[in-house]
Amino acid sequence: MRAPDDLRALVEERLATLSLLPELHGQADSVRYALTGGGKRVRPVICLATGEAAGASVETVMPAALGLELIHAFSLVHDDLPSLDNDEERRGQPSTWAKYGEAVAVLAGDALFGEALRLALSYPTPHVARELTDATLGMIGGQYLDITATQPDMATLHRLKTGCLFGASVGMALWAAGVPEAEQGPWRGFGAELGLLFQVVDDILDGDGYVLTDGLDGARGIADESADRAQAALAQVTADTSVLAGIVESLRSRTI
Amino acid sequence: MRAPDDLRALVEERLATLSLLPELHGQADSVRYALTGGGKRVRPVICLATGEAAGASVETVMPAALGLELIHAFSLVHDDLPSLDNDEERRGQPSTWAKYGEAVAVLAGDALFGEALRLALSYPTPHVARELTDATLGMIGGQYLDITATQPDMATLHRLKTGCLFGASVGMALWAAGVPEAEQGPWRGFGAELGLLFQVVDDILDGDGYVLTDGLDGARGIADESADRAQAALAQVTADTSVLAGIVESLRSRTI
Repeated sequence: MRAPDDLRALVEERLATLSLLPELHGQADSVRYALTGGGKRVRPVICLATGEAAGASVETVMPAALGLELIHAFSLVHDDLPSLDNDEERRGQPSTWAKYGEAVAVLAGDALFGEALRLALSYPTPHVARELTDATLGMIGGQYLDITATQPDMATLHRLKTGCLFGASVGMALWAAGVPEAEQGPWRGFGAELGLLFQVVDDILDGDGYVLTDGLDGARGIADESADRAQAALAQVTADTSVLAGIVESLRSRTI
Repeated sequence: MRAPDDLRALVEERLATLSLLPELHGQADSVRYALTGGGKRVRPVICLATGEAAGASVETVMPAALGLELIHAFSLVHDDLPSLDNDEERRGQPSTWAKYGEAVAVLAGDALFGEALRLALSYPTPHVARELTDATLGMIGGQYLDITATQPDMATLHRLKTGCLFGASVGMALWAAGVPEAEQGPWRGFGAELGLLFQVVDDILDGDGYVLTDGLDGARGIADESADRAQAALAQVTADTSVLAGIVESLRSRTI
């Protein structure tokens, strides 16, 4: 089983050489720009590590993992648009709309969504793509609640905006690896914690969100409880989940 | 076999009561607005009529047909945005961004794309969703060529912008109806003409596009040749294609 850094390097390599539908013509440039500007690649790494723990090869799970990262990139490209978050920069570089113009950036997000689906649809079963599609719709619903400030509560907002795609990182790997639905429960219990854990630690590092509502110690407590629940769920899985347990700890203690 | 007007009425009814993922929350309003403002519903009607000709029930083909219309609606919502075509009206009503604001309209298009895929993914085979995804990416490529004026030629532009989704109207019906790939050739020859036929007649009615490059008589000739090729392809299909032949003639002679 590979370490997260090795998995991340594989993801970078595959993103850099990803084959796009030729019908995109010049639109492909902005799609590649949005994909190759860095990022932690945490969702595809979780997906690949889950797949390996479930007994599948990295190659088998790679299309699902890449699909997740394309959906994440799609969400960033559209979120950065002037009419949404109006971010001119993303990871120290011009955001996609700042570089290519707003119109091309709208289409770049659309194309990333389509290419993500194409990857998820490379499997013989539609379950992988169903999981990605439902998670994406949840994420869109969360983004709507955020920009309109109509969320019923913070937990719902983050479950949708962040949690759906993290949950799908585990769920897509299970389908890709052929884990029967009846055996997916504990795995999914693990996946359900990752979005919350990631978000709360993000807020601790940025001093916003949960830190504002629960204080620094309160937020730290929420993160630790979530990480503990994730480890407890993993302990119920009949497989070598040591790499996944390591990912939980690195999400708990990350400083960037 | 049902007449096109009956199929259109069924499509309207199903669009009006379409079930959307609850996770969309308030975003669902703009999605419904974009879907129920009228339109010819020509792509889903072609899809349903193809499915019936191939021996499938309307119910079997309906999710594919609705998926096509949702992708069409998605493309209109994003095309109408200020940064693209800047259209404040669509079919005599405020366009989605004019009604709900630009940010919600970006997300409405995204959600329509996701819901379209959810419909296409309701089949046990991934082929229906693959066909829709590839066609959507082609359409996005065509839209890019259009807004950047970088098309190699008019034929490529229209094959992507219009042709891909018309072709998929036939292709998705074939997969939904279980027509083996080896028998799809003549059906697809028919489908490949529909986008060109639709576009040239559109240009004749609007006095632009092909009328500007080929003159009114020239455009009429291109439309008639395309309709004739569509009929010739249908004649090679071993099935009752009378409804489809009628659709070709109504596309050839339409005045709205």
